[in-house]
Amino acid sequence: MNYTVQVVVMPLKELLDPQGKAVLGGLENLGLGKIKDVRVGKNITLQIEADSKEAAKSIAEEAAGKLLANAVMEYFEVTVL
Amino acid sequence: MNYTVQVVVMPLKELLDPQGKAVLGGLENLGLGKIKDVRVGKNITLQIEADSKEAAKSIAEEAAGKLLANAVMEYFEVTVL
Repeated sequence: MNYTVQVVVMPLKELLDPQGKAVLGGLENLGLGKIKDVRVGKNITLQIEADSKEAAKSIAEEAAGKLLANAVMEYFEVTVL
Repeated sequence: MNYTVQVVVMPLKELLDPQGKAVLGGLENLGLGKIKDVRVGKNITLQIEADSKEAAKSIAEEAAGKLLANAVMEYFEVTVL
């Protein structure tokens, strides 16, 4: 079966996120000062051919750990849709 | 109140996603050939000071429309967490 799996990769909470800070500045300049913090990460959707939902999740976790996320700076969350 | 809002920005389905294709090639080289397609977009989390969940969502939609997403190439989805 074909599964759609979402992998969200975000900068670790302990780290500064310069891209997020830049976006926050841009939003303030647009008059959106009610936005107090911004963090920017990646959203990756995978189409996976697997026998079960669990197998698809396991493949996605392997992909995230090996290639999609850099564990030194980022964490990831895997959701089978 | 403070709301956490997630904005997912993805390349339009009609468009090629060269970054996704590159990642797909990398995953195949790692032996993850069961992954048949990859699309890469952005995941942005916003902390918004607003009176209600609806107000927070409306601010996030304005931010996404004006700055976070490029409507020519991308679509976005807003979720209040």
